[in-house]
Amino acid sequence: MATILILGAGMMGTAFAWPLADRGHRVRLVGTHLDADLVRAMRATGEHPKLGLPLPRGVDAYPLEELRDAVDGVDAVALGVSSAGVKWAAATLQPLLEQARPLAMVSKGLAWNGSRLAVLPDVFLESWQGEVPAGLCPVGVAGPCIAGELARRVETSVVFAARSREAAETWAELCRGDYYHVWSADDVVGVEVCAALKNAYAMGIAFASGLHEARGGSNGSIALHNYEASVFAQSVWEMRQLIKLLGGDPEHASWLPGVGDLNVTCNGGRTGRFGKLLGQGLTRTEAISRMQGATLECLEILANLRQALDHYVAAGQLAPGAFPLAEHLAEVALDGAPVKMPFARFFAQGESVKRNE
Amino acid sequence: MATILILGAGMMGTAFAWPLADRGHRVRLVGTHLDADLVRAMRATGEHPKLGLPLPRGVDAYPLEELRDAVDGVDAVALGVSSAGVKWAAATLQPLLEQARPLAMVSKGLAWNGSRLAVLPDVFLESWQGEVPAGLCPVGVAGPCIAGELARRVETSVVFAARSREAAETWAELCRGDYYHVWSADDVVGVEVCAALKNAYAMGIAFASGLHEARGGSNGSIALHNYEASVFAQSVWEMRQLIKLLGGDPEHASWLPGVGDLNVTCNGGRTGRFGKLLGQGLTRTEAISRMQGATLECLEILANLRQALDHYVAAGQLAPGAFPLAEHLAEVALDGAPVKMPFARFFAQGESVKRNE
Repeated sequence: MATILILGAGMMGTAFAWPLADRGHRVRLVGTHLDADLVRAMRATGEHPKLGLPLPRGVDAYPLEELRDAVDGVDAVALGVSSAGVKWAAATLQPLLEQARPLAMVSKGLAWNGSRLAVLPDVFLESWQGEVPAGLCPVGVAGPCIAGELARRVETSVVFAARSREAAETWAELCRGDYYHVWSADDVVGVEVCAALKNAYAMGIAFASGLHEARGGSNGSIALHNYEASVFAQSVWEMRQLIKLLGGDPEHASWLPGVGDLNVTCNGGRTGRFGKLLGQGLTRTEAISRMQGATLECLEILANLRQALDHYVAAGQLAPGAFPLAEHLAEVALDGAPVKMPFARFFAQGESVKRNE
Repeated sequence: MATILILGAGMMGTAFAWPLADRGHRVRLVGTHLDADLVRAMRATGEHPKLGLPLPRGVDAYPLEELRDAVDGVDAVALGVSSAGVKWAAATLQPLLEQARPLAMVSKGLAWNGSRLAVLPDVFLESWQGEVPAGLCPVGVAGPCIAGELARRVETSVVFAARSREAAETWAELCRGDYYHVWSADDVVGVEVCAALKNAYAMGIAFASGLHEARGGSNGSIALHNYEASVFAQSVWEMRQLIKLLGGDPEHASWLPGVGDLNVTCNGGRTGRFGKLLGQGLTRTEAISRMQGATLECLEILANLRQALDHYVAAGQLAPGAFPLAEHLAEVALDGAPVKMPFARFFAQGESVKRNE
């Protein structure tokens, strides 16, 4: 059995310890500077306060100050940091990892560097100062996974993607189990684009339930489900377009990383709550304030996506208006525009379909 | 403006009158023998009892006995019958339509004739005795559309598919409007396979919420959403496989007809309620009895699909086990087997993905 370091002790980083511990591995869970209170609580009570669960046997929590000791002799490393923490993680681990280790990351996002949208495994490598150790090939974890469910051993199906299929399989072998089903892929762009975009689109899919409430509707089979489903379908459509644009295989939008993760994000969590508030007619400022400081990945991804789309259009690589939904979501969530879904502009670039005029 | 016949006065057939009436067409809504009470009620009160709404101006209801008069001089015909009613509709209309009319059908299903799974527009044509009038090209209506929402003018996006793109566009032009967005396609197999399968798969997606309840769980972001999302993704995967097998374009699974309609079917209606009962652990007999006579399209489609898959495997056109989800759904819903989702057998035939072992 292996010894595995997880850097980042938030909900997802910590939940990732369950399938590893259940495979008999020892897990050293190291908090970032943002996780100091969580680590203190875990050390005091044995429980993760946000997950509301005791850590499984074989999992020990460490504060960031003890990272150097914790990393000593580990067989593999997982990053449980946010998208904003990926560069920091690369810089932090670099002096401590003289040799390459199998490295996975649950972080989801797309970074914009002024000329290119980059997936986070690439951001990690680009943040590495000097030569990257041979064999260091970061593995992105994608697919539908609510952390609190994984830590309760709910059946979960995910995709591990890396530029080397072997790297993805090595990590998959470490944690596959009864309830944690892992597929691997070598199209890191196709998979990670989906993982990043789902937060933005799930926000827009949730507009429908907010609009319905604002119109005085109650829960039930008559609501704005037709509206919601159209937005869901357009979300998948735009995921496919962006994957094509970045050189990946658009089919990844049609299984776990795309439709699977989009489905789960609509069913659980803060992105949907935020979108619903916007759909109710709250201004962006009011909606953000109601979220009481919760991390809203959708805002970051929409900001990056908008810059990238503008750039690709200006460079002649993309037709204007090819992402009507993403553009509208950015107007609402970033500029404070009211919700007014551009349905008639949806589905405009299909091969065997004709534009709705 | 045109005069349009709708044959079938159930919820969906009747709801289809709204976008037509709002475009200024006159609509003659003729009930089948199953709709006699509905027609009587509409004539007495002006309201459709199941939709709970008054009919729009320009829509008149007729009993089946008056079909001959109602069809006289109509410019187009829409079928609002169930999948089981398609053959009957062809036989009934045949003596009355000496010339071809633009013909649309909201019926969803796949028929098994012993050697081939057929989409319903083809079933309609095959049911026509003698020569089919030149230009008669049935248009299938697919995509996410809850009838009660369409009749409340909720924004709705659908796809009209026919073997002739012109036939699909002719119908689309009749009813496009502010809230009814219509795209057209000429891949009737790709589109209609999705429309048919969504009922079967939505049943399976709903197992998760039933299982969660049976385990004592309450609503919230921690439930069995990971389970549900995996099943959703596998549903889309199997839709793609079946479309390929029948010679259509699998991309239709990735927009309105597939993921869009699957999403809406999970959010509204009886198929989800039935799947949830099965997930709770009720036997198939108990679950059917709890549904109090509601039409369960999922049972018919699963029965047809199972026969077809067995046939294609026996004929060497399909590898055994390529539809693990559909097979399990048939075992549960048709044979009374307990729910035990075969996650490890999901996603087994991808091009750029590797099987989970």
